[in-house]
Amino acid sequence: MAERILILGGVAAGLSAASQARRVAPQAEICVLEAGPTASYGACGIPFVLSGEVGEMERLVVYSRERLLAERRLQVLTGHAAVEIALAERRVRAATPTGERWFPFDRLVIAIGAQPRRAFPALAPGERVFQPYAWHEASRLAACLRSASPPRRALVIGGGYIGLEMADALRRRGLEVTLAEASEQLLGGFDPPLAERLLPAARAAGVQVRLGARVTAIESGPGGLRAATAAGELAAELALDCAGLAPRTGLAEAAGIALGPSGALQVDERQQTNRGGIYAAGDCAESRHRVSGAPVWLPLGGVANQQGRVAGQNAAGGRPWRFPGVLGSFAVRVFGLEAGRTGLNSREARAAGFHAAAIEIEAPTQAEYIGRRRMRLRLVYDQDSQRLLGCQMLGQPDTILPRLHAAATALAAGLRLEEVEMLDLAYAPSLAPVYDPLRLAAHRARNS
Amino acid sequence: MAERILILGGVAAGLSAASQARRVAPQAEICVLEAGPTASYGACGIPFVLSGEVGEMERLVVYSRERLLAERRLQVLTGHAAVEIALAERRVRAATPTGERWFPFDRLVIAIGAQPRRAFPALAPGERVFQPYAWHEASRLAACLRSASPPRRALVIGGGYIGLEMADALRRRGLEVTLAEASEQLLGGFDPPLAERLLPAARAAGVQVRLGARVTAIESGPGGLRAATAAGELAAELALDCAGLAPRTGLAEAAGIALGPSGALQVDERQQTNRGGIYAAGDCAESRHRVSGAPVWLPLGGVANQQGRVAGQNAAGGRPWRFPGVLGSFAVRVFGLEAGRTGLNSREARAAGFHAAAIEIEAPTQAEYIGRRRMRLRLVYDQDSQRLLGCQMLGQPDTILPRLHAAATALAAGLRLEEVEMLDLAYAPSLAPVYDPLRLAAHRARNS
Repeated sequence: MAERILILGGVAAGLSAASQARRVAPQAEICVLEAGPTASYGACGIPFVLSGEVGEMERLVVYSRERLLAERRLQVLTGHAAVEIALAERRVRAATPTGERWFPFDRLVIAIGAQPRRAFPALAPGERVFQPYAWHEASRLAACLRSASPPRRALVIGGGYIGLEMADALRRRGLEVTLAEASEQLLGGFDPPLAERLLPAARAAGVQVRLGARVTAIESGPGGLRAATAAGELAAELALDCAGLAPRTGLAEAAGIALGPSGALQVDERQQTNRGGIYAAGDCAESRHRVSGAPVWLPLGGVANQQGRVAGQNAAGGRPWRFPGVLGSFAVRVFGLEAGRTGLNSREARAAGFHAAAIEIEAPTQAEYIGRRRMRLRLVYDQDSQRLLGCQMLGQPDTILPRLHAAATALAAGLRLEEVEMLDLAYAPSLAPVYDPLRLAAHRARNS
Repeated sequence: MAERILILGGVAAGLSAASQARRVAPQAEICVLEAGPTASYGACGIPFVLSGEVGEMERLVVYSRERLLAERRLQVLTGHAAVEIALAERRVRAATPTGERWFPFDRLVIAIGAQPRRAFPALAPGERVFQPYAWHEASRLAACLRSASPPRRALVIGGGYIGLEMADALRRRGLEVTLAEASEQLLGGFDPPLAERLLPAARAAGVQVRLGARVTAIESGPGGLRAATAAGELAAELALDCAGLAPRTGLAEAAGIALGPSGALQVDERQQTNRGGIYAAGDCAESRHRVSGAPVWLPLGGVANQQGRVAGQNAAGGRPWRFPGVLGSFAVRVFGLEAGRTGLNSREARAAGFHAAAIEIEAPTQAEYIGRRRMRLRLVYDQDSQRLLGCQMLGQPDTILPRLHAAATALAAGLRLEEVEMLDLAYAPSLAPVYDPLRLAAHRARNS
């Protein structure tokens, strides 16, 4: 059993690791260093605070530091930013509110997450430009929206799912919203024909969508912010940079811990890095894709929790656990619709060497006499092996998750189209049609 | 290619068979004999007509006879009840509105469904006792509910899912409803601890539930109907017999077609009976259970459609299709809750020889800061192989189907608990918690 387990990062992966380590090693000294002001919160809930649906940032906290200490005997130190990993000495130097301090360890879990891919350094502090991925920036933004003279016109930079959630949240709060996306489509992980169908809904929700509009600079002037883009200048009083994240790797790299081809920290299936006793998990770590087998970097909350638990189990010397890899499953509810995907999209499937084809259907999700709930579903499959490779969907509320969960399960099991078509999925007039959209799409793909 | 394909039964399985046969054999003569007054309707929609949500029985018709003839060149003869299968002469004798007639065939598909397990012969015709499984009785009941002096007090006999749907429908229409169930639990296919949790919801919806109340006789008197039960007498103005179905096998049995151990028509994986060129599908046919491998009889609409398509494909001489068996997946929405199951329950699992155990959890289906939607989920698994054997659930609206579809997929793939726990299921605060209930239950089962 390891005696001192040190965990860098106190959000999804870090706290999952710490909690699992405690289950395995009741006697270990477990210490969590979190750079930010708050640990153990659901970062995916930030858009709901901005929209006003969740009253305050504090409601996103899952466990208070006091409860973590009392119930799990986890020492969580916030405002503690690791600045050096001294591998040979088995210790970490951290900047703390009271000066620098060294923390010794027997086993180390690195779970320090991701950071915005770029900065806008020309801006003065206090400008209304935010990168609301984590607690500090999100709190600053929430306070700005609640201020005496709140901004009315917002620019959201980036049309990935976080940008879409932020745009939707600000619209529901009543702001005018322009969304600038560098590429020619929203939701870059989706095949273009399906992603395109989100545009009318975004516009109907009142979001001005600008595609091909890479933001190259933001300047502050007397009238507010001015963003220079490839498609002209955009004015706003508030800007949210949601243009992408990168794994936070500098600290580990400086200590000689290897990066993988994706640019994130390389780990084996035990979540161990190339250095013995040093584990990594969550948004700073690489994953293996379950369909392609290739190393990928997919910063998603569910994955972070799973990897964290595996890292914690193994770091604490428990029966070895294995992380089986990722499918990139995710879902989002925006503009009155739900979108989700799992597995490979068409481009990724071809890049992975598959002889990939795709089929897209629109189908009801209830018996026709009950209602009109509908969804679109797109399957990516291998024409040679007839194996399912991925699935994307877009639909009305409460339509996509049954098919998304089933598709993720089918991908994990490596099912072929025929097996998907022949699944015995429940039918009930108000819940699911006799021929479920997932089965219907598999049928069409087989006969296309 | 078969030249004359005759199909007995024009509802789910029969019309699926006919339509698939037409795709395979554009030149064949395809004739469908339906005993009832209407073909091609969604029998699962009957409760929604009774509740008033669907305005009239005719809205349940999927394709009119005219469309079936014009678009698929399917001759559908309603009011044609097969009364004899003359195997040697390859022909069927049917009672028709204009007298008896013989129908020759090269291939035959038997899809005549199920019938109520018993009758109440002492009652005079016109009494308000209904067996509303099919068009004729359901129409009679719908007319009764719309009559000038509609009944106010209903007795529903049978607490399976059809009885529950009927009780719920009549309550929503404003009737007083008593539900009499012979056994000590509702939803006999569920493990008792989970089924028990439906009782408070049924009672809150205003249904008087009587368990251990087998109805032994119904008599008609001046004050209405009086039902004698093991738990005393029950009075009502209207009674619905939903106490169970049996496969309709007499016709085929008389022709020497074999029954399986379940009492339904025995078929191979091509849906062929023990007689060459004679197929059976739907509620009159047996199935193989995918988990136990045993022959079972599960009259469910989705299965009927699938079996019908396989029978039609093979009867028409297409590339042979195989029906992979059933899981008994089904879902129902009653009393403001949803219930569903797939695979084996505890009793069935033990009977099939598994070293079965079960675990039941209650879990949120959203992030806690978003809402309070919750569900209960019960897993049945084999303690030796750690394989998932079945799954039952009960939850608030729009909670169960994602887990039910995923569980059915996991069962089809034969996944073990560890594989279920490690599924990459999408997380989104408003749609699914970071630790999906299905994964959480698998985790608990592994660690119990």
